[in-house]
Amino acid sequence: MSVIYDRVALIGLGLIAGSMAHAMRRAGLAREIVGTARSPETRRIAAEIGLCDRIVETAAEAAHGADLVVLCVPVGAMAEVAAEIAPVLEPGATVTDVGSVKRDVIAQVGPHLPEGVHFVPGHPLAGTEHSGPRSGFAELFDNRYVLLTPDPDTDRGAVDRLRRLWEGCGANVEEMDADHHDLVLAVTSHTPHLIAYTMVGVADDLRRVTDSEVIKYSAAGFRDFTRIAASDPTMWRDVFLTNKDATLEILGRFTEELFALQRAIRRGDGEHLHAYFTRTRAIRRGIIEAGQDTDAPDFGRTKPPRRREDAAE
Amino acid sequence: MSVIYDRVALIGLGLIAGSMAHAMRRAGLAREIVGTARSPETRRIAAEIGLCDRIVETAAEAAHGADLVVLCVPVGAMAEVAAEIAPVLEPGATVTDVGSVKRDVIAQVGPHLPEGVHFVPGHPLAGTEHSGPRSGFAELFDNRYVLLTPDPDTDRGAVDRLRRLWEGCGANVEEMDADHHDLVLAVTSHTPHLIAYTMVGVADDLRRVTDSEVIKYSAAGFRDFTRIAASDPTMWRDVFLTNKDATLEILGRFTEELFALQRAIRRGDGEHLHAYFTRTRAIRRGIIEAGQDTDAPDFGRTKPPRRREDAAE
Repeated sequence: MSVIYDRVALIGLGLIAGSMAHAMRRAGLAREIVGTARSPETRRIAAEIGLCDRIVETAAEAAHGADLVVLCVPVGAMAEVAAEIAPVLEPGATVTDVGSVKRDVIAQVGPHLPEGVHFVPGHPLAGTEHSGPRSGFAELFDNRYVLLTPDPDTDRGAVDRLRRLWEGCGANVEEMDADHHDLVLAVTSHTPHLIAYTMVGVADDLRRVTDSEVIKYSAAGFRDFTRIAASDPTMWRDVFLTNKDATLEILGRFTEELFALQRAIRRGDGEHLHAYFTRTRAIRRGIIEAGQDTDAPDFGRTKPPRRREDAAE
Repeated sequence: MSVIYDRVALIGLGLIAGSMAHAMRRAGLAREIVGTARSPETRRIAAEIGLCDRIVETAAEAAHGADLVVLCVPVGAMAEVAAEIAPVLEPGATVTDVGSVKRDVIAQVGPHLPEGVHFVPGHPLAGTEHSGPRSGFAELFDNRYVLLTPDPDTDRGAVDRLRRLWEGCGANVEEMDADHHDLVLAVTSHTPHLIAYTMVGVADDLRRVTDSEVIKYSAAGFRDFTRIAASDPTMWRDVFLTNKDATLEILGRFTEELFALQRAIRRGDGEHLHAYFTRTRAIRRGIIEAGQDTDAPDFGRTKPPRRREDAAE
């Protein structure tokens, strides 16, 4: 693998930026990685663990002289960072981001960028429930998707160069329209997160079911919800505030379906329930076939007899 | 480990019964394991893979002479099986079940059992989204909970004996009241399953978001829902029909909370969202500390740098 950018600036040093740093180093994709974060504590930890080649104090300092600037801050902070780095960006540089919402980020960042700077919005569909500078790891993007949502007028060379960077980090890269991205993600990520947060909150509220019981007996279903609901609160607040329309639309459909199932339960309509549950099973099969998950029992957490992951190692 | 029952009859040969057979053999807990299933195909496969010592054609035949009969059929089929085996049960034998709902199973099974037969309802909180006679594995119950809900009048010796069997299968055993069980499970399992089924159904319905996109881009959140929503349709239909009241109560609270969050999104109330998401994060920490999940990034699916599971092996 060869160097794709001379200097990459990572603005914000959480899970995604940290994993990008590890992945770029693994493949030798950047000659120099400069990082910054607003919090002095984050910068201190990043410096201590050698996450980047240089840690600097401000976004402007990091972006200065970079040929790729990656905005890895919560979606609500994109405009501010874009305004701060705009004066130091050089013509020919590329700015991208890793935000979970694309139309709003484009509206926030686009207007600030000077002529000659390429803006290629991006979204890596990868993550864990962990955050902070220590949470990253090089394999996070392996075989995951990265969606790029450039305007059709964007310089083709700049888009392809960023695509090669992500491919070098192990990802599959696809391009789509920003509005379509926001709708797809409302279905596959944003609404599921809101629902998981809600269910965990309900459990927390119930006084008759003590905390320790909810936690002890979480193996069957609830556990997966808590993992989702442990994700970074600031990031997710911003996602819902900035992808409001698509999320509310999908939520509307969700409650409509939920009420139909609730009515089936109340009426004892077993046929309706069975047909519904049979249909949803097929989608799971598709996901395993698409390579986006393993079918090892219980995700391999309980040491099943044969493990696909092990077999592949 | 020493033999706890001379002859264990497994009625129904799906994931739980299959895993019990493997786990009992691993620890030498039963002198003989007799199995049966309604479907000839299931019996054929079970015989082919040697799942039990003997495979017989009917539940009555399996229960005949057994000192432990385990009902591993969907909750809706419990009454029928109980009626069938009642005439052959011998005084001193124990009958248990593995159903996800306890009050309804007690109502279905209890009246059929003759005097002198001990009934100790049970529920192992373990599972995967797979089903059928090939899906079982010995480690399924390791460090998982099994809840027993015997009537206070039940023979203490019979309860303790069954407890030792489950402990020999690797599980932690606790006892509780059947009604309380049904409420706890409505929170930790039944309602989460219904919600996951609903969300997957919504995604399937959306024509603007093609199937392949939903599947390809499922990594962030939706994937965990599809796993839950791939569980056995018959089992889950019966769960909702038989734990109707508790499920509807928790669903009511869920929609109440969901509407509050929906309103916060519509109004742009970031403070409400952030506070809610911060609160739910703490529950996740509790689950990891309780040993009911790993905090390895992405469940270890992507080979992170350090893995707790590996370290423990």
